[in-house]
Amino acid sequence: MKAAITRHRADMTRSLGGLLFRGVHSLATVPAVRTQLGHLASGGPIRTVMTLPSFLSPKPRDFSLPNSSWSSEMLRLHEHYNSQCGGEMEEGEEDRGLWLRLPSYNRSLKYATGGVYLSKMVQANARLFTRNSREQGAGFEYVVFVNKKENRCVCIFQAGHLLEGPPGCVHGGAIATMIDTVTGTHASVVSRPVMTANLNINYRSPIPLGNTVLIESHLDSREGRKMFISCKVTSTDGSKLHTEATALFLSVNFSHLLTGG
Amino acid sequence: MKAAITRHRADMTRSLGGLLFRGVHSLATVPAVRTQLGHLASGGPIRTVMTLPSFLSPKPRDFSLPNSSWSSEMLRLHEHYNSQCGGEMEEGEEDRGLWLRLPSYNRSLKYATGGVYLSKMVQANARLFTRNSREQGAGFEYVVFVNKKENRCVCIFQAGHLLEGPPGCVHGGAIATMIDTVTGTHASVVSRPVMTANLNINYRSPIPLGNTVLIESHLDSREGRKMFISCKVTSTDGSKLHTEATALFLSVNFSHLLTGG
Repeated sequence: MKAAITRHRADMTRSLGGLLFRGVHSLATVPAVRTQLGHLASGGPIRTVMTLPSFLSPKPRDFSLPNSSWSSEMLRLHEHYNSQCGGEMEEGEEDRGLWLRLPSYNRSLKYATGGVYLSKMVQANARLFTRNSREQGAGFEYVVFVNKKENRCVCIFQAGHLLEGPPGCVHGGAIATMIDTVTGTHASVVSRPVMTANLNINYRSPIPLGNTVLIESHLDSREGRKMFISCKVTSTDGSKLHTEATALFLSVNFSHLLTGG
Repeated sequence: MKAAITRHRADMTRSLGGLLFRGVHSLATVPAVRTQLGHLASGGPIRTVMTLPSFLSPKPRDFSLPNSSWSSEMLRLHEHYNSQCGGEMEEGEEDRGLWLRLPSYNRSLKYATGGVYLSKMVQANARLFTRNSREQGAGFEYVVFVNKKENRCVCIFQAGHLLEGPPGCVHGGAIATMIDTVTGTHASVVSRPVMTANLNINYRSPIPLGNTVLIESHLDSREGRKMFISCKVTSTDGSKLHTEATALFLSVNFSHLLTGG
């Protein structure tokens, strides 16, 4: 029993120390853990209000793993990059391969006190926007790989039928959401936590619903708290440019987030 | 029976002639009507493959009407603008008030032939991205009003718990989605159909989940096919600026859309 408690505490510390702001822009949004973050923000002790229920630990569902809705093209590309990976990136772990696959969850850490007030209903039910669909293949299906040495990320994205904008095509907002997700994930690999400061998106050609596309980002420069990242969305063979974008992210500190400033 | 058939045909013609591309950027996205659009595109006759089933006609659900999930602030603002309306804008109808409330549906017109191939599954299940949630209050709750004389639109937007990005706050992509929706709706009032060409978004401060905010757009200029629209997202009392954006829309023609070019 003591061993179990110790493990919980170790997990909690790791989550709070390292993964907490992945929800702001995330390598991966961690599952819900109720903690008194007000204490943490004020430099006080980390205290758990309750321990993790067993059904939430130790591993939440990773939404970036292949499922039955993935097209053959999506599976092929996933295998292409996955075969060049040294393994999933875990906190404090060295990357052993050229590419790293980043896991992706559907919850952010919730906080019971401090900063923004949220009703209990909202807290309990909140889901990451890109992972909020219960039906596989209906919304955003994607997996992100990062290549730190080359300052770039690649995302394989399959657009489900709930993302419609123009008839038969993906909504511009859904494309913007994926660009924000990929560039924000990229920025969070470089320096987390980060917040999106600017997205500048040029839409070149529509993406048909159901299609699989590539979203590639490149870290162009870093100036103090600022990270400038460029991004493009293309057909999987690279022959068709769908969207181009630039993004600016700012490293943020803890108190900035909790006060919502 | 003859009267009913005649009414269906009249509805169909109106939909095809006027509302068809509202899905690209829409006053309102019209419900599914199966038609052979390939014939329409080539200048041929408008023919219906089948008539509208009774459960789809005559009126689809308008998602911009108040429901039990709306906050008191959302209801108050809706009443504020609605009381200044001459009524909903219908095709060919003159605006009788300062503001017009725009209805909003969850389907785009589908096409069985021509242009982009979509599987039957995707066609049958496709839903407008901003109206794809079955649970009231969980996703995007919003209503758009337009003031043609002042070249501006206002949207009252309540962010549900499925739109999370940073812990407790709305995802940057969900904000981009609403900016695209409001500015695109605005552009479509001026000249439809339109497609989004550029969105340039500056994120100033996070929007807490559950909050109601105002999204206001202004038509800055029009140059040929181009429409330049600016937009800002603020707290409902206007004291807090959450997001600022500019948007560029292009008028598009029918063949452009069908070929996906």
